Amino acid sequence: MASSAVEYARNNQQRFLNELKDLLRIPSVSTLEEHKPDIQKAADFVASELRRIGMENVEIIPTKGHPLIYADWLHASGKPTALCYAHYDVQPAEPLDEWHTPPFEPTERNNNIYARGAVDDKGQLWMEVKALESLMQSGGGKLPINVKVIFEGEEEVGGESIDAYIVKQKAKLKADFALVCDTELFAPNLPTLCVGLRGLVYTEIEAKGAMTDLHSGVYGGAAPNPFFALIEIISKLKDSKGKILIPGFYKGVKAPTKDELKAWKRLPFNEEKYRKAEVGSKVLTGELGYSVLYRTWARPTLEVHGMPGGFIAAGAKTVIPAKAAAKVSMRLVPNQDADDVFKKYAAYVKKLTPKGIETKITIHSKGPAAVVGTDNPYIKAATEALHDTFKKETVFIRSGGSIPIVTGFQDVLKIPSVMMGFGLPDDNLHAPNEKFHIPNFYHGIETICRFFEKLGEK
Amino acid sequence: MASSAVEYARNNQQRFLNELKDLLRIPSVSTLEEHKPDIQKAADFVASELRRIGMENVEIIPTKGHPLIYADWLHASGKPTALCYAHYDVQPAEPLDEWHTPPFEPTERNNNIYARGAVDDKGQLWMEVKALESLMQSGGGKLPINVKVIFEGEEEVGGESIDAYIVKQKAKLKADFALVCDTELFAPNLPTLCVGLRGLVYTEIEAKGAMTDLHSGVYGGAAPNPFFALIEIISKLKDSKGKILIPGFYKGVKAPTKDELKAWKRLPFNEEKYRKAEVGSKVLTGELGYSVLYRTWARPTLEVHGMPGGFIAAGAKTVIPAKAAAKVSMRLVPNQDADDVFKKYAAYVKKLTPKGIETKITIHSKGPAAVVGTDNPYIKAATEALHDTFKKETVFIRSGGSIPIVTGFQDVLKIPSVMMGFGLPDDNLHAPNEKFHIPNFYHGIETICRFFEKLGEK
Repeated sequence: MASSAVEYARNNQQRFLNELKDLLRIPSVSTLEEHKPDIQKAADFVASELRRIGMENVEIIPTKGHPLIYADWLHASGKPTALCYAHYDVQPAEPLDEWHTPPFEPTERNNNIYARGAVDDKGQLWMEVKALESLMQSGGGKLPINVKVIFEGEEEVGGESIDAYIVKQKAKLKADFALVCDTELFAPNLPTLCVGLRGLVYTEIEAKGAMTDLHSGVYGGAAPNPFFALIEIISKLKDSKGKILIPGFYKGVKAPTKDELKAWKRLPFNEEKYRKAEVGSKVLTGELGYSVLYRTWARPTLEVHGMPGGFIAAGAKTVIPAKAAAKVSMRLVPNQDADDVFKKYAAYVKKLTPKGIETKITIHSKGPAAVVGTDNPYIKAATEALHDTFKKETVFIRSGGSIPIVTGFQDVLKIPSVMMGFGLPDDNLHAPNEKFHIPNFYHGIETICRFFEKLGEK
Repeated sequence: MASSAVEYARNNQQRFLNELKDLLRIPSVSTLEEHKPDIQKAADFVASELRRIGMENVEIIPTKGHPLIYADWLHASGKPTALCYAHYDVQPAEPLDEWHTPPFEPTERNNNIYARGAVDDKGQLWMEVKALESLMQSGGGKLPINVKVIFEGEEEVGGESIDAYIVKQKAKLKADFALVCDTELFAPNLPTLCVGLRGLVYTEIEAKGAMTDLHSGVYGGAAPNPFFALIEIISKLKDSKGKILIPGFYKGVKAPTKDELKAWKRLPFNEEKYRKAEVGSKVLTGELGYSVLYRTWARPTLEVHGMPGGFIAAGAKTVIPAKAAAKVSMRLVPNQDADDVFKKYAAYVKKLTPKGIETKITIHSKGPAAVVGTDNPYIKAATEALHDTFKKETVFIRSGGSIPIVTGFQDVLKIPSVMMGFGLPDDNLHAPNEKFHIPNFYHGIETICRFFEKLGEK
């Protein structure tokens, strides 16, 4: 039998979806300076809704970067306190010409909603807000447990402000567990909790050669070319088999337990289907001797994301550019130390820098990996709530991505995170045509209602 | 005593310069589709001036690419015929933020005129036009020799249309020699004729991995990254000492004669000054055992000009791009065959392409190196004219750049080219803040007047 909160959510599905569309129309791209007003607009949108549904002490908290949003409702005496986390910022939408419909005009097709941020993470943020509304409305203005909300606008650019905030505001944010809705189901209709995340060190190497751009005919053979320097450096950071060559890089790497590895083997995963339908490449790459799940969840990697500089328009320009850059990131696993990895990386890049070239290495974001235990009452209640929604046993997985705040909750607030996300593997997050499966949006709202009700009953 | 043509040129310097500024204001960038109307505007501007000064049969000749301009004056019976060549298209002006004044608003500073195309090649094209005007005006509507003019608008993108045109119109373009004004003085006030040019093969490698952009957290460790493929490939095209590793690449390379190498050693060239003032890098790069002039004039090279794809805006985006590309060119020397080099290069790139990646190689432009003999009457008359202007002996140099049409004049029309240019080594061609030293603009006009007068006297 559906709870009255679930009932309320079901009766209001279309309105909830329309509200989400309004939020998706705001291009709150956190990495691009020109979208700063949109970030503010998105924060205002979310904060007013929290106020409207009956949350208290709603604040938009200015930071050095983008604002945080706080709210609470703390009148469930003797009941546990949840800290609800999500982020309202999104990745850039480029390349725009690959979107079938514009990224900031949410469009429904095949029971999906297509838009930048649909699943990562505005759709999942809105699940939390709408679950709180459903609980509040069906509970006569009361929630079954105490709830604090902390939403950020910098997740896609490293989340520095929230990191600093939780260190300063430990007491204010004190809770028993965090609910983090920013992950995905392992497969459609398979209830999933994520219990491990990789960390991230995202850097940019800028290489300078000549003092000005030079004609490659006139100076080719004498002038240093910063692209060649970057190519020479990066070709030595990782071998063709995926092994990272930075001295000491693998120090501390902790392998998953045998039990975890066994459980991963039982997951419904078809490597050939994954290659064809998700990745769409001729072969999969990566280290020999590790499964795909092992490689993407529990092995560190190094990637190049873009190489700004020189001439990149259509056609030909015979230039030796004065400078060029490379965006290089590393994914970390337990127990690699992000600072230590960056130090070793930077030292190695400096060592590999050829004569005649100056390199400058900057860091865009940095956070270690995180692993959550499965033997706490919050994970247990979440598992039961998922079962009620999906009528299936929950699987425990990891994610190759990073949610740096989960590490912060663990290390600073000393609370476990329940990473309960409702995305799907083919949702194109960070890519053109990002989507959110609409039934999963509704399932998410219902599951959060049930999860909090279960904790309130105890 | 100055000839009356030189006299006329001196009396009209300011007007000539103002006209050049009008031409420089037209952004006739040949590689960018959006500038097609500007290309047409520049062609119209030049053609009307040729008509105005009394040239005959002036034509704007449509091509598959950008138009050619033809004109002639053929009434100097018994006298030689010159084919005057220059180009009215320019390189892109990017990066725009490094220009001190806007690239298409010509500005005078320190006796230089700053603008994209100032020296390469609109300023030098205008020298030819203004020399013809001066000769015509001072000669009572007659030129001392027969003159054909062929100007192109595709020099910066490979010059395919003029190549095809000279093959088709051998009779129409028949001449005794070509005058090509698109090179530079070896040093300020040092009269210079260029007698050798490197060739060029300019390519683009496009690499494809996954079918869509992927999140580097979720897929890093399994999805192929086309940037890594390009880095792996390009790192194996050239070693860190500048040696090109494409099998068979150096086949046919002809070294300069001992006499030429000796003459190069006598040129006023200070490697340290060149490094500091021209290149502005910590060290010079290139093959050991070859001088800078040898390396840039007579050794083949391979450069990367830009790597489009992925995320190149400020900040961080954790993407494994579905595709990436690299603009790679090779400079060729006598007697490398451009087709043969491209074939070997393309085959090697294919061989180096890692599993999981598809590469497609396209060619943007292609032309072999050229060497001109110094023992013909046209080079001799040019040398005398330069002596009259500069009161100094002419030096014979080569250039590392390419003027593919010189090879065409040699191979198709069977005529030598007099490469008489008035740029300076620090004129920033193809770079921000391109300039032309104004006295050199005037010297160029005067020298061409004297050159044609000398040929007319014989």
